[in-house]
Amino acid sequence: MILGAGFAGLAAAQALAGARVAVTLIDVNNYHLFVPLLYQVATAALSPADIAEPIRHIVAASENIEVVLGEVSGVDPEAREVRLADGTAIPYDRLVVATGSTTSYFGHDAWADHAPSLKSIEEARAIRTRVLQGFELAERAADPAERDRLMTIVVVGGGPTGVEMAGSLAELARHALARDFRHIDPTTARVLLVEAGPRLLAAFPEDLAAYARRSLERLGVSILTNRAVETIDADGVVIGGERIPAATVVWGAGVRASPAAAWLRVATDRSGRIPVEPDLSVTGLPDIYALGDTALCRDERGEPLPGLAQVAQQQGTHLGQALRANLEQGRPMPPFRFRNRGNAAIVGRHAAVFDFGPRRHLRGSPAWLLWAAVHVVLLVDFSQRARVSLQWLWRYVTYRRGARLITAPPPRR
Amino acid sequence: MILGAGFAGLAAAQALAGARVAVTLIDVNNYHLFVPLLYQVATAALSPADIAEPIRHIVAASENIEVVLGEVSGVDPEAREVRLADGTAIPYDRLVVATGSTTSYFGHDAWADHAPSLKSIEEARAIRTRVLQGFELAERAADPAERDRLMTIVVVGGGPTGVEMAGSLAELARHALARDFRHIDPTTARVLLVEAGPRLLAAFPEDLAAYARRSLERLGVSILTNRAVETIDADGVVIGGERIPAATVVWGAGVRASPAAAWLRVATDRSGRIPVEPDLSVTGLPDIYALGDTALCRDERGEPLPGLAQVAQQQGTHLGQALRANLEQGRPMPPFRFRNRGNAAIVGRHAAVFDFGPRRHLRGSPAWLLWAAVHVVLLVDFSQRARVSLQWLWRYVTYRRGARLITAPPPRR
Repeated sequence: MILGAGFAGLAAAQALAGARVAVTLIDVNNYHLFVPLLYQVATAALSPADIAEPIRHIVAASENIEVVLGEVSGVDPEAREVRLADGTAIPYDRLVVATGSTTSYFGHDAWADHAPSLKSIEEARAIRTRVLQGFELAERAADPAERDRLMTIVVVGGGPTGVEMAGSLAELARHALARDFRHIDPTTARVLLVEAGPRLLAAFPEDLAAYARRSLERLGVSILTNRAVETIDADGVVIGGERIPAATVVWGAGVRASPAAAWLRVATDRSGRIPVEPDLSVTGLPDIYALGDTALCRDERGEPLPGLAQVAQQQGTHLGQALRANLEQGRPMPPFRFRNRGNAAIVGRHAAVFDFGPRRHLRGSPAWLLWAAVHVVLLVDFSQRARVSLQWLWRYVTYRRGARLITAPPPRR
Repeated sequence: MILGAGFAGLAAAQALAGARVAVTLIDVNNYHLFVPLLYQVATAALSPADIAEPIRHIVAASENIEVVLGEVSGVDPEAREVRLADGTAIPYDRLVVATGSTTSYFGHDAWADHAPSLKSIEEARAIRTRVLQGFELAERAADPAERDRLMTIVVVGGGPTGVEMAGSLAELARHALARDFRHIDPTTARVLLVEAGPRLLAAFPEDLAAYARRSLERLGVSILTNRAVETIDADGVVIGGERIPAATVVWGAGVRASPAAAWLRVATDRSGRIPVEPDLSVTGLPDIYALGDTALCRDERGEPLPGLAQVAQQQGTHLGQALRANLEQGRPMPPFRFRNRGNAAIVGRHAAVFDFGPRRHLRGSPAWLLWAAVHVVLLVDFSQRARVSLQWLWRYVTYRRGARLITAPPPRR
């Protein structure tokens, strides 16, 4: 049984497709979400359906895989049962926990109301609505201070999510919306990227981070490093004692593993991740495996693997194949080894950074093209591929955004 | 000033583009919605962004048109002011009322909770969620009666909306979902189309209505005519004293003009429409015009024009051109004459009916192809055109649905 149909869980299921093993794949959503492109939904470049595919559809041809739409509420390792929120219990022989991560507001849960993160379609839609509604209200605002507040967007966190979000927002304001208003000039919108650490993209080499900073600044993004956010409320943020009025605040700072560790009653690291053995089994629970953002898995040098889609996907494929060989032929479970395929962050059109390891860096247009090609290929199935390629091509030629709809409920103030 | 950016209001604004007249276009949404294709969003074939385009973007090049996102709460014809819900008042010289229609539950407002209609993106998304969630819950239901209820969909109203909805739902169950479940057979889902009158498509000639009925029955739709719905609640419907348990009920039966008549304090017909003179001015209020679903406009024989997109669009273009000639050159306002371009309803793949007037009927594949071509061309701008064509082509080849996402809140029970 596999809990979660993200990159890790889905890859594990697909590796078990057609095996002489009954697979149950449980997820709280009916779709697999391509989270790395969620920021493009939040900035009106793509529609939710462009980056989400029904899980049932993906595994429809594999008769041995059953999909269950349900919310897991607990696991009973003694009874070998998974319990769902609706009260049903589903038995398992082997359990794969791939329930991903959730947003962490570092103890300030009240911030969640004012600063959505980029974890779900609903949040992406909420951000899109706030940003677009901000410009609409600014167009009619009589008070200059209120107009400035409505046209200010603060992105918290200078990791890849924050960098991508800030770049895409700046492009939205500078190009897609540029000519559409009569009283305001959207190109004067203020996009602020706030990072508590000394520089952007801490996981990337310094030269790439410096390039990303220059590219963002060229797009008009203001970058504040070494500054932690102290307050987030309906009026904006407080940073270093200074209040910055802002209608939209996006949270890209903290993630935390899903509550799977609590279900299994195992100890975790600071981020809530479950320590796993080299074969991805949970330490002390040999028939339970943990993958992706939920797992604390170390490489050969003892460093924890980062929470990336490629790590999750490789772990899923590895574990699926290992379980198949183990269950069908009794083979032992081999250790997992991560192969770095390159770590990317995109700043905007023609501006991306790609890190393939020491001294193998790529940036600018070549990195952007490679990023685009990789992400189109990574998308789960052909239909999505065709649609996303077409939309990108179209946007690329016209600088436009096709999904500029205000459909979520308006933001609270 | 134009109230409403539907087919009528937008056409009027576009006819005034570039004129020496300041145009203010007010709508409660930031997008123009292609309502005739909304049923395709409700049945997971298209994404909301495929059939909606930001109003600002459509008129961006016309410097004389200002777009205001706002909800109209009243009109003061003496002060020549439009009042918005946020308290602001906007002055006008000439007023064009094109605020469309809303759903009428014939006095049973409580039915709205259980039977969404097809008027907005939010409703289309709610229907999509109910239908897909029904299949998901059925897959896990132990009780056969409950499983049948979850797989039963009732469509109320046998007009074009009901026919299109029923046909598209049957195709969704029979083709797109057919292989995706393990415990239920989606092709056995029951789609029921209920019409209070003696036959489907009352506005169409009898031969076309009979063809539509046969085509729907071939798709597996059960059709009940001469039966009025007596109750709609969380468990289903009561028709002719018989309770039919159903998880999804779609309302396609009644529409009512927007409350514009109350703002203007004028008498209306039974459906709330405002009577207009041949030049589309509101009787007794010469500087105010009413268009589209909000207006009661009669043809040469004294018959009221139907609530169709083509009527609205022709009226908008006519009035925009007439106002332009009147304001720029002082020409008199000419009377409006409707040209019937053909009335269509689609049942499913290769099955549509087209009525061009007495003895000029088209049906089957040719009608379907014509319908598809017309609707692609009608879509507001090129970007949408390219995307919708591509999706249709893809669906046509593969029988698939790309937007099968359960994202709205789950239905209440």
